[in-house]
Amino acid sequence: MYKIHIATEQRDQFVEITDRVRKIVARSQVQHGLVTVYSPHTTAGITINENADPDVVHDMLLTLKRLVPQDTPGFKHAEHNSDSHVKASMMGSSCNVIVEDGELVLGTWQGIYFCEFDGPRQRLAIVKVLEKQEGMMDHF
Amino acid sequence: MYKIHIATEQRDQFVEITDRVRKIVARSQVQHGLVTVYSPHTTAGITINENADPDVVHDMLLTLKRLVPQDTPGFKHAEHNSDSHVKASMMGSSCNVIVEDGELVLGTWQGIYFCEFDGPRQRLAIVKVLEKQEGMMDHF
Amino acid sequence: MYKIHIATEQRDQFVEITDRVRKIVARSQVQHGLVTVYSPHTTAGITINENADPDVVHDMLLTLKRLVPQDTPGFKHAEHNSDSHVKASMMGSSCNVIVEDGELVLGTWQGIYFCEFDGPRQRLAIVKVLEKQEGMMDHF
Repeated sequence: MYKIHIATEQRDQFVEITDRVRKIVARSQVQHGLVTVYSPHTTAGITINENADPDVVHDMLLTLKRLVPQDTPGFKHAEHNSDSHVKASMMGSSCNVIVEDGELVLGTWQGIYFCEFDGPRQRLAIVKVLEKQEGMMDHF
Repeated sequence: MYKIHIATEQRDQFVEITDRVRKIVARSQVQHGLVTVYSPHTTAGITINENADPDVVHDMLLTLKRLVPQDTPGFKHAEHNSDSHVKASMMGSSCNVIVEDGELVLGTWQGIYFCEFDGPRQRLAIVKVLEKQEGMMDHF
Repeated sequence: MYKIHIATEQRDQFVEITDRVRKIVARSQVQHGLVTVYSPHTTAGITINENADPDVVHDMLLTLKRLVPQDTPGFKHAEHNSDSHVKASMMGSSCNVIVEDGELVLGTWQGIYFCEFDGPRQRLAIVKVLEKQEGMMDHF
């Protein structure tokens, strides 16, 4: 298990952590398996999406804010961050990426994002690399 | 593989199952690995979110109901539960939690929820614990 | 690792790939473990939902289109497919299914769907089967 420390700077922000996950997988020396990236927070999630044009992240955050306004009528939670909780569950608390020949199997335009919805805060992403059994290497 | 039986009591309801998952992991004697909690239903999902203030769950359910009304114009599915299917996919059919030193690696405020969207019903959550290879224990 | 090739035919389309995943698991000879189905694309995701009545998929796509219109005011991404990126993250980039006695543990009405949101295109789903350690077979 490995921890990635992230200092977010805005209330809603996607922080790309692909390179940090890639380094952890390299150091683990796992050749074939699965890496799980996990957010231990209830107002931040993990997603995989476009790593090239930052306008995509802008438009994703715009949509989430429009769908779940912070001041939604009927919200009861006193911390005034119910929207952050919903957005975190909509993105999900973790992602899986396949590891093959020691490399992350990501599409050309894919990056791994830590999704802050109640920043700025000091945050963590937890990374675990699971290895496929040796005897099974010749299979899939 | 282990089954958790859940009797839901409302149409939309989050049932916390963290303690039951924790017991399964303890009994499996797995020290380092990953636990997957899976919903075998198409109108119920799994999510991880706040376990302290029940108002958070209230506000999450309120949002999902507002975003996906049961009587959405244009719905064709005859069972009148298309909203339940959409909500299940929005939350996701499973979650992963890392296991370290035999314990679930959850954040302080995180709980694992079975998300009922078409209750009340008798439901299942399926739990599988995967162990990391022994030779790799010293790695991540 | 195994690749499933998918030729989508519409901009928004769910393509069921359950049988193809089932065959991969059978060929892997893994008896107990986890299969991960992964979309390496940023405008297509993976979800698990009803495999019986196609009206459910119709209603899910209708909802996603209503929640995230292609022409949302404020979108900046020049490719005019920001909605596709958001929908992909809402469904998620992968799913996990438990493998028990060599079979996928799916509910009666569950199918695995490749979710196209920016087709028609030539697409891939990547499948990885992880096996549980042998010594632990008697556990969960």
